[in-house]
Amino acid sequence: MLHPTSNGERYELTSPTALPKAGGFLWNQKMMISITCRGYATAQFMQPEPAKYAHAPNLEMKTFMQPEQNYYAHHPGRFVYVKDEETSELFSAPYEPVRASVGKYVFSVGKSDISWTVEHLGIRVEMTFCIPTHDVAELWTIKVTNISGKPRKISVYPYFPIGYKSWMNQEAEWDQQLGGIIASSITPYQKADDYPKVKTLKDKTYFICETPPVSWEAQQLAFEGEGGLHAPSSIQATELGKSDARYETPTAAVQYRESLKVDESKEFRFLFGPALDAAEIQGMREKYLSKAGFAKAAEDYAKYIFDGRGCLQIETPDKELDNFINNWLPRQMYYHGDVNRLTTDPQTRNYLQDNMGMAFIKPNVTRAAILRSVSQQEKNGSMPDGILLIEGAELKYINQIPHTDHCVWLPVALEIYLNETGDYAFLDEQVKGMHGDSYTVFERFSRAMEWLLSQNARDHRGLSYIAQGDWCDPMNMVGPKGVGVSGWLTVATAYAVNLWAGVCEQADKKTIADKFRAGAKQVNEAANKHFWDGSWFARGITDDGVTFGIKSDPEGRIWLNPQAWSILGGAASPDQIKKILPEVDSQLSTPYGVVMFYPPFSQMREDVGRVTQKYPGQGENGSVYNHAGAFYVWAMYSISEPDRAFRILRQMIPGPDEEDYVRRGQLPVFIPNYYRGGWKAQEKKWERAAGRSSQLFNTGSVSWVYRCVVEGLCGLKGEKDGLAVRPQLPKDWEGMKIRREFRGAVFEVEVNRGEGKEVAVVVDGKKIEGNVIKDFGKGKTYKVEVSVPRE
Amino acid sequence: MLHPTSNGERYELTSPTALPKAGGFLWNQKMMISITCRGYATAQFMQPEPAKYAHAPNLEMKTFMQPEQNYYAHHPGRFVYVKDEETSELFSAPYEPVRASVGKYVFSVGKSDISWTVEHLGIRVEMTFCIPTHDVAELWTIKVTNISGKPRKISVYPYFPIGYKSWMNQEAEWDQQLGGIIASSITPYQKADDYPKVKTLKDKTYFICETPPVSWEAQQLAFEGEGGLHAPSSIQATELGKSDARYETPTAAVQYRESLKVDESKEFRFLFGPALDAAEIQGMREKYLSKAGFAKAAEDYAKYIFDGRGCLQIETPDKELDNFINNWLPRQMYYHGDVNRLTTDPQTRNYLQDNMGMAFIKPNVTRAAILRSVSQQEKNGSMPDGILLIEGAELKYINQIPHTDHCVWLPVALEIYLNETGDYAFLDEQVKGMHGDSYTVFERFSRAMEWLLSQNARDHRGLSYIAQGDWCDPMNMVGPKGVGVSGWLTVATAYAVNLWAGVCEQADKKTIADKFRAGAKQVNEAANKHFWDGSWFARGITDDGVTFGIKSDPEGRIWLNPQAWSILGGAASPDQIKKILPEVDSQLSTPYGVVMFYPPFSQMREDVGRVTQKYPGQGENGSVYNHAGAFYVWAMYSISEPDRAFRILRQMIPGPDEEDYVRRGQLPVFIPNYYRGGWKAQEKKWERAAGRSSQLFNTGSVSWVYRCVVEGLCGLKGEKDGLAVRPQLPKDWEGMKIRREFRGAVFEVEVNRGEGKEVAVVVDGKKIEGNVIKDFGKGKTYKVEVSVPRE
Repeated sequence: MLHPTSNGERYELTSPTALPKAGGFLWNQKMMISITCRGYATAQFMQPEPAKYAHAPNLEMKTFMQPEQNYYAHHPGRFVYVKDEETSELFSAPYEPVRASVGKYVFSVGKSDISWTVEHLGIRVEMTFCIPTHDVAELWTIKVTNISGKPRKISVYPYFPIGYKSWMNQEAEWDQQLGGIIASSITPYQKADDYPKVKTLKDKTYFICETPPVSWEAQQLAFEGEGGLHAPSSIQATELGKSDARYETPTAAVQYRESLKVDESKEFRFLFGPALDAAEIQGMREKYLSKAGFAKAAEDYAKYIFDGRGCLQIETPDKELDNFINNWLPRQMYYHGDVNRLTTDPQTRNYLQDNMGMAFIKPNVTRAAILRSVSQQEKNGSMPDGILLIEGAELKYINQIPHTDHCVWLPVALEIYLNETGDYAFLDEQVKGMHGDSYTVFERFSRAMEWLLSQNARDHRGLSYIAQGDWCDPMNMVGPKGVGVSGWLTVATAYAVNLWAGVCEQADKKTIADKFRAGAKQVNEAANKHFWDGSWFARGITDDGVTFGIKSDPEGRIWLNPQAWSILGGAASPDQIKKILPEVDSQLSTPYGVVMFYPPFSQMREDVGRVTQKYPGQGENGSVYNHAGAFYVWAMYSISEPDRAFRILRQMIPGPDEEDYVRRGQLPVFIPNYYRGGWKAQEKKWERAAGRSSQLFNTGSVSWVYRCVVEGLCGLKGEKDGLAVRPQLPKDWEGMKIRREFRGAVFEVEVNRGEGKEVAVVVDGKKIEGNVIKDFGKGKTYKVEVSVPRE
Repeated sequence: MLHPTSNGERYELTSPTALPKAGGFLWNQKMMISITCRGYATAQFMQPEPAKYAHAPNLEMKTFMQPEQNYYAHHPGRFVYVKDEETSELFSAPYEPVRASVGKYVFSVGKSDISWTVEHLGIRVEMTFCIPTHDVAELWTIKVTNISGKPRKISVYPYFPIGYKSWMNQEAEWDQQLGGIIASSITPYQKADDYPKVKTLKDKTYFICETPPVSWEAQQLAFEGEGGLHAPSSIQATELGKSDARYETPTAAVQYRESLKVDESKEFRFLFGPALDAAEIQGMREKYLSKAGFAKAAEDYAKYIFDGRGCLQIETPDKELDNFINNWLPRQMYYHGDVNRLTTDPQTRNYLQDNMGMAFIKPNVTRAAILRSVSQQEKNGSMPDGILLIEGAELKYINQIPHTDHCVWLPVALEIYLNETGDYAFLDEQVKGMHGDSYTVFERFSRAMEWLLSQNARDHRGLSYIAQGDWCDPMNMVGPKGVGVSGWLTVATAYAVNLWAGVCEQADKKTIADKFRAGAKQVNEAANKHFWDGSWFARGITDDGVTFGIKSDPEGRIWLNPQAWSILGGAASPDQIKKILPEVDSQLSTPYGVVMFYPPFSQMREDVGRVTQKYPGQGENGSVYNHAGAFYVWAMYSISEPDRAFRILRQMIPGPDEEDYVRRGQLPVFIPNYYRGGWKAQEKKWERAAGRSSQLFNTGSVSWVYRCVVEGLCGLKGEKDGLAVRPQLPKDWEGMKIRREFRGAVFEVEVNRGEGKEVAVVVDGKKIEGNVIKDFGKGKTYKVEVSVPRE
């Protein structure tokens, strides 16, 4: 069913029904399109807020992507019907809307294009599309080939539903001059002040054709008629009805009537996207809508994707892992870092983590993101809930709810940036703030850490306030009165402050470093005093003084994050860690990763709040939330637990067998933000869904997972003066090969099990002292042989 | 195709395709359901804001009803599949989703129930539903009868899609104890403060069965399978798969397998609706889900509807008009007055007009609404943009945009209330305001009128400011700087102030009346000086001093409202009226009513704004906006232009011939808020849609139309001391019969053409002096013979 090609750069599905929601996605800085193997698509573009150019048939709520949810017959998609003109038989590619049992079906997801090959009734349909690098549009090629061995007469009907554009006005018609169907609308608005923004919106959707069709439909209901989408009335006629849409829902369907000789092919090209006006559409037509234009765009886009290839190629006993790490994980990380999830006000924690991953791809992007972040630091040293990316952006939705963790992510992101670049000079850069103040990067980081340690952020016991939340979709009723505290944030504060102290040490600011080390130590002591519950750290203490996430809680008894971060930040002693690890193993582990907490809540706990309102296995809780899992993996590598680390790391990636793909419902082209939990829940009713992918490729996990592979599994971690080498192979691996790009040099590393008790490193034939490679030059390639103990 | 029954109390359609969007609606004070002849439904209930219990398959935007727009296969609806167990043939009632060409089809809209009879494959399916009077639920009866003349084996599958409930959690399952499918969800929220409200929401949807089915599906995709809605996979099997939904989209489908003898029937009852918890569902089951429970509910609901029957029954040469006025118009008016369009903060103008209609049904409701309105009067005498109906309601959406017309509607509504009741004592009632002040009704009205005449509301020329709007969906760029003025509001101010002066006179406050009369006169003089454009009144003057709605404007040259209200308010002299009427006739008239302005705008006019941004024929402009049409009809009756008045009044009601129904696409069970324009537009492309109904039954038109019929056409208008009689028949009518209820008495009126030059009135055989019937008693019935001049 599932055939990764040999180099892993494409994934192919040969059935449209096995993983019905599986698909791929393409993006550039201005747009993103996610498309399923059956042809359903969700596309968004920035103007500057995210918008759509193809819609559901009803008014959709403006919300974040929800690809786990249902598709349905009229969901936006990209389809082509083929009718045999002699027999009137009909099918559609890729699969929807006709859903014929076709002879051959291949859905092929590449890194810079997505395509299908469908054969039925002696006709091969090949659909391929990509997007441009700097414009918003889809470039579609539809090719039909007569493979029946006899001359054929067929009609080919590309059908791109446009959907409900606006109640204010929507219309569509064939435009002879532009050579396509142009749908127009007016965005409704209420406040006169909004008009200057509204008038610049790209309210048109165009579907333009390189080759003029013989007929078309521009109105959805006229296209379907009483036949319905599985057998549209208009297709049953000789020609489409050339309808227009006036107030009605627009669509784009065109007809090509072709006589095909034996083995003859016909190829058609189309451009689909949003525009402000006819001139813009004409410009796009001239720029792209030709064989040469498509080829140039595909080449440019492949180059753009190649630029995001990351710093690592591995060859291990696990081929599917290799494919994922070499091809797909950096691509997903690049998407996050280059596009910021199509927002104009990313949550500060997301923004910093998404850009932290870019340190492995384009470190200058990370640098700029850290600068942008600290330039928006509050005057008291704290960080805002979101980072504004463009003029006129506003903090929206969740960014209006007070969270207390944002400072934590500054040194976390900085560490990776410095590891990859050694750019300590960055710390001296002066940053003018949006609130009028001016400090160096170093000063701003110190101020942020001071805020975390201050009485603004911590109570009399030294525990960190939680306010209405301390992480993604947080618990909102623990501390709304300003009293409740967070176990996680307390130990995370120690981690962040310790990280920063480490940077201070590297930057030769010993006094400052000592001050922060002492601060972190106090925090950890407080954490131990108030949160240690005998075998793990509690999750928090409410406004009313109730400690939760503890043994006596029947639900939400143990939470993953406090354990991972107490290990990272030093709150957990070696003895405590020995108690924590088996509890995580026994209470939180599932075949699809570690759940965020256990047992799941069966009902609202009103002193804890929102997250706990969710049901077992749902969303971020009771679920395998990969972001939290990735923290834990990093904690495991940080304490040299390579098997625990690798087990969970590997569980994040779908595969390798069919049963696993089917349960997750996803191809291994990205890590989703969560897998559904319920595996261990008492209630059996959730079991059917356990392990199921959220299908959502927006997740803070990816930078962490990549970091775990680079710095943990491969153990090739940047330090101020060089590249530390300390691979942590799972115990059943004999070795692996790694190609690592680092500060302009290339290291070709071969890791093997050795007989020594320490890691031994040989560079270009010479054994080095210790395990840090220091002498290397830009543009050069080094052979590195690494011997790791057998354990 | 369309067969009104003899008394007009039901309308029937015998094809599901002729008027595909035509339907009916039922409501009580807590819910409303609109359902089409094909089975698609939109239902809302108050908790306290409007919410749904059956949803689209994707996340819908929360917005006002938009029934003009597309339906699509997965739109919420109420369906039943029937499968012949011997041949596997399948059809569905009412029509969707299978869309079979059935043998017999009748869609029947009653005033208190809606039903279908569908015959196919020798099986008759009768679907009937109503709603309770005081609870939120749908009571469905589905009856199948074997009319094939031979024994049959069939399966019957009621299918009530529940749709996308929530991304936070959604699930559904068969509940053995409750005897039905229960879908659960959690409403997402962001702010902790919202939780107390969110936790009380009815997040469950139930579909419970009086008779236990043999099988069911609770998950939408499991129900459809690869077969799709037109041939669901689960129905192709022997039994439904008993699926549950976990995170998936819920649905409710159940199966009954029946062996039917010749002519045998089986009847099933179901309850469908929202609930907070299982106990509520159990309570509803016990209360309603039985033959007796259904019968009681239907009887109660019919009585509730009967209570809203209005004060008029007519018998005229136009039977379709009779049906509409006797049955459907008061029902629609009752809906508005009793439910306030399912809002908690109706726009002040809507609230007052909707309740003004209630003066003809339940005058005490009008009285309470006026009291509630003036209790929310601002301290400076102006009225707020919306009236808050419940504790905790807020001014939302359009009510946050400053409009300047709200005071106008106070005397407009009061006039009707006083006409119907003569309750002048009402004026002396003391009203404590929400802002702490306390005044009598009389004082509050005077203060509102003083505000309209004050420098807060009028410029140095005496013209009324428009701010960001002066009416429904107003032009928002005329006066946002606080300078621009409204032609309509200026002449409407004179109308309102004159109306109030009239009340003052009746209340023996001559001095005050004179003061207001003088004020209105000044307003009208200013209007004439600045807005009279030679043949009509202009629409306004912008912030930058540009007068618009005038001869030299290529688009938006003449507007209906300034003409209607200058006639009503006295700005237009008899000579001016003679010029205005032919301009309205020639520029604004269409076969489906008078358009709101002409010519339509083809593009945005940035000094005028939002309304003009809409395209030709669209929405409220370039359209036949019935609300504006109704004002004009009343203006025509007020100047004794019965033919002009009746022509336009009649155009608001669909029918009588098939061609007209089809063009409008609607049954004559309500007046829609608009008919699409474009009839006269230069651009032919809009012609196909001209006359098409918006399908929206929320409209301020209805009180006015009823008033036009009662006080204009029938000429039976209340005065302080009695009932004035002055029918205004269209010239080709020889007479009409009227039954008029008035202040507790009943007047059985027969109008005939007479030879006199004046209206002559004979009561119980005695000719009265003048034309006002003064001596009558509650509970008595009077025979009135009226002779009207032939010309």
